[in-house]
Amino acid sequence: MTIQGTGTARPAGRPRSEKAEKAIIEATLDLIAEGMGVSELSIEAIASRAGVGKTTIYRRWSSKEDLVVDALATLKAPLPPLAGVSVRDDLITLLDAMRAESGNRRGRCVMNIAMSEADRHPRLTERFVQRAVEPRRRALREVLERGVASGELRPDLDVTLAMAILSGTMMWQSKWGPADGLPEDLAERVVDVVLAGMAPPAG
Amino acid sequence: MTIQGTGTARPAGRPRSEKAEKAIIEATLDLIAEGMGVSELSIEAIASRAGVGKTTIYRRWSSKEDLVVDALATLKAPLPPLAGVSVRDDLITLLDAMRAESGNRRGRCVMNIAMSEADRHPRLTERFVQRAVEPRRRALREVLERGVASGELRPDLDVTLAMAILSGTMMWQSKWGPADGLPEDLAERVVDVVLAGMAPPAG
Repeated sequence: MTIQGTGTARPAGRPRSEKAEKAIIEATLDLIAEGMGVSELSIEAIASRAGVGKTTIYRRWSSKEDLVVDALATLKAPLPPLAGVSVRDDLITLLDAMRAESGNRRGRCVMNIAMSEADRHPRLTERFVQRAVEPRRRALREVLERGVASGELRPDLDVTLAMAILSGTMMWQSKWGPADGLPEDLAERVVDVVLAGMAPPAG
Repeated sequence: MTIQGTGTARPAGRPRSEKAEKAIIEATLDLIAEGMGVSELSIEAIASRAGVGKTTIYRRWSSKEDLVVDALATLKAPLPPLAGVSVRDDLITLLDAMRAESGNRRGRCVMNIAMSEADRHPRLTERFVQRAVEPRRRALREVLERGVASGELRPDLDVTLAMAILSGTMMWQSKWGPADGLPEDLAERVVDVVLAGMAPPAG
């Protein structure tokens, strides 16, 4: 199906705005997943893959970077709601959201490629981090700080380090863990080892 | 300095075997670091950058994959010797080697790019993992198993999960940690939190 008519009147079959937007986002992700790095990616290639005109893209995004940031952000699931009762439970909820996300093969692949280019596209990376990574970090930090305040966690806990341990473990699992999906109880097991510690209980 | 003479006799200044090998490895890493993905990388481009003939490369490596695996392996520091006395100390030694490695900016960049292509080059990734990642994993596993056996670690510790926690934390740090280098005492702090746990001591 070609979308643009040759006449001046808009053809009746023209996809509605959201439909075109979705096609553009999908085309962007597909092209990255197929190995077209962010540098090589062009609005032209995206337009052609999405079956839309370049102006349709430029009407929504002022640059390739903006479009890529939006496309990558769609790969992130929304932050899960937290019960706010037990710190252990909230940590499991947050880590389990990371686990679920990593089950998306294409998402993983695209994210790997995009992030590997961080050094070459610092502005893009920074915006993506602000948009999609920071809200999760903030949620994790808040839960940990709540735990320190409530006594569920050590009073002297280095919260930033704790964040690195929890997120890093899930990141490692999604990179090196079983290709056919991470175990359902992974988040719970990680949180329990990390809370209790690897050393034997004292006494 | 140009390396190849124009005459037929070998110029006296022609680099010896190891020198050519080093130039080829460096050229490979440079090209990857500059953004030429593994797919686009060609023996031709490497030869031209290294200032050697293609046959010089083919004499040592039968394929591009072999050369890339060797080049990536040079980015990994050798495994540090372990004292074998305290499990805590040996874990710190292993994690500190990961920290030191991530201080190498080009190495980090190249590794990111190469690993981002894992999905597209499974054979290459597998060989690299066997060559450069497995020995470290084995060392980490041995230390943890020794700790379980000696009672320095919990008898019911999930060693595979513990490996993911320790390596993942360092991986996260080298990806998201401060760009100007990771703190000197990072490995020690990570090991201590992970051994003691984030929960307050019982009793």
